[in-house]
Amino acid sequence: MRLSELLGTPLPLIQAPMAGVQGSALAVAVSNAGGLGSLPAAMLGLEALQAELTRIQAQTTQPYNVNFFCHVPPLPDPAQDIRWHTALAPYYQEMGLELASITPGPGRMPFSAEAAHLLRAFKPPVLSFHFGLPSPALLEVVRSWGAKVLASATTVEEALWLQAQGVDAIIAQGLEAGGHRGHFLSDDLTRQMGTFALLPQIVRAVSVPVIAAGGIADAQGVAAAMALGAAGVQVGTAYLLCPEATTSAIHRAALQSEAAQHTALTNVFTGRPARGILNRVMREQGPISAAAPAFPLATAAMAPLRAAAEREGSGDFSPLWSGQNTSGCRALPAAELTRLLAQGF
Amino acid sequence: MRLSELLGTPLPLIQAPMAGVQGSALAVAVSNAGGLGSLPAAMLGLEALQAELTRIQAQTTQPYNVNFFCHVPPLPDPAQDIRWHTALAPYYQEMGLELASITPGPGRMPFSAEAAHLLRAFKPPVLSFHFGLPSPALLEVVRSWGAKVLASATTVEEALWLQAQGVDAIIAQGLEAGGHRGHFLSDDLTRQMGTFALLPQIVRAVSVPVIAAGGIADAQGVAAAMALGAAGVQVGTAYLLCPEATTSAIHRAALQSEAAQHTALTNVFTGRPARGILNRVMREQGPISAAAPAFPLATAAMAPLRAAAEREGSGDFSPLWSGQNTSGCRALPAAELTRLLAQGF
Repeated sequence: MRLSELLGTPLPLIQAPMAGVQGSALAVAVSNAGGLGSLPAAMLGLEALQAELTRIQAQTTQPYNVNFFCHVPPLPDPAQDIRWHTALAPYYQEMGLELASITPGPGRMPFSAEAAHLLRAFKPPVLSFHFGLPSPALLEVVRSWGAKVLASATTVEEALWLQAQGVDAIIAQGLEAGGHRGHFLSDDLTRQMGTFALLPQIVRAVSVPVIAAGGIADAQGVAAAMALGAAGVQVGTAYLLCPEATTSAIHRAALQSEAAQHTALTNVFTGRPARGILNRVMREQGPISAAAPAFPLATAAMAPLRAAAEREGSGDFSPLWSGQNTSGCRALPAAELTRLLAQGF
Repeated sequence: MRLSELLGTPLPLIQAPMAGVQGSALAVAVSNAGGLGSLPAAMLGLEALQAELTRIQAQTTQPYNVNFFCHVPPLPDPAQDIRWHTALAPYYQEMGLELASITPGPGRMPFSAEAAHLLRAFKPPVLSFHFGLPSPALLEVVRSWGAKVLASATTVEEALWLQAQGVDAIIAQGLEAGGHRGHFLSDDLTRQMGTFALLPQIVRAVSVPVIAAGGIADAQGVAAAMALGAAGVQVGTAYLLCPEATTSAIHRAALQSEAAQHTALTNVFTGRPARGILNRVMREQGPISAAAPAFPLATAAMAPLRAAAEREGSGDFSPLWSGQNTSGCRALPAAELTRLLAQGF
């Protein structure tokens, strides 16, 4: 089956879900332009999720995607928290903040029975998962209304695993991609491949449609991904300057600066490796830090630093998520950007 | 100018120079098939270089490329040598070898006045350089017979630097590529980009032709690189199984095994990061080791281990250079492989 038939969209183009920098507005704009808009649900509580889904259904009759993380929440590790707080203490002192002000919070929630139950009322036509898949029982729930299931693979092994679990399509996430790496069978980052190597090897290994992600920034990138055997593409970074995205002014400025030439995988913001533009805390604490608690627990202690720095107009403690190719970032309405990308098909 | 006009070849396709696994035979086969064959000179003494050039000129009238490294040889560092020998000592003991048997050797020589003088008699039509460029004085020598000059860039900054030095074309070496990374302005590996991100950004930044390298394994890969704006491609890994390559049986077996799914950048074989299939010494000592001496001095102490292990049929201490995409490796004559790749233009 062609990917656009599977997704029910005119274009085999998915707007990558990007938690923290977009909500329903971007998803609606892309879906109404013929792509598959995505709502990132990882940082939404159930009420917020319901509100966002309500907005989407009010504003489009086109298919859309809801994206969830599938991590296993870690057990609290007070010793690791102390290591992390000690590492960050000099910043707290510098900025006149109190470590005691840190409020532990979930940060990012995995897909849950409660979320599945809530979704049932909206019947989103597509769900995509990062960090593996939810339990078979939860998958059965989302299958009950006919949702198509997509998931990210960062190695051939992960793609074969996902296919064996019955996913409808696989997102091959190349190393160029911004935000969190989707790996789930091994956390050895040397296993992660560039799109040019990963995509054709996954295409060759599986029989389901493969969606290319990572480094695709414009119509030429779309054409190149299709030449490598992709059934469609998922594009994130290029949408970050769109007015419908909620990307902060600091983040927008970084994406348009020379700084965007240098991204890195870092765990200092959440505890899991994610690609962002190199900034002060990444440079000084990592980009990969052994002191960072397990995902998503690193976030709690970083949040006050981020908030204080952003109040001063600084992105020194902000996750400036970005892929390695910002050359396609355009401050254009998402519909227009979608049409530009679609010229690559 | 189109790249094939610049190179004087029917095809804008360069066989990547791969020191240690090929000599004149592969270069001749590719040049005679319409591509640009390459002779890697980094591990050749002057006599061997002369012999190889003589063989090439006897076997083809087509253009060919000679590739040199441009590193600055490091000063001896006895303290670092002791660290390295200490790290490797358990292997010496395990294999019944004596650390005293290590013979310091240059390993890999940079381009030199002597080499330039020797080349003058052969007037190779193309020279390519890795790790930057030789001195302007040496470049002037090779320009004297009209040689075209190519060099590798791994960042946009390096591409701009090379263009400013007057190179005729730039090889954009994506992170997927096998063998040594060509970086020369920064040794921060987080700056290295996948081909999908690096290539279009270099194409946009410079006015000289850009040759894509890294992850290109078959005609689809060639087509994808051209879609991203490349003027041509450089392909290495795919040629490693050709009968004209001197790839060892151990290396050939690894390339065709599941092990090839997991490559990594390692400095344990030479002192500089290079991509190879993960093996025992990479796993146990690195893949990046702080104990490894500066390039190319790490090689001397690894050589006896490699030789002893290979005598037992083991690649545990061998550099199994490979890109991240071995899906195009074919035990076919190089001319045939070249024709298959050319279907992507």
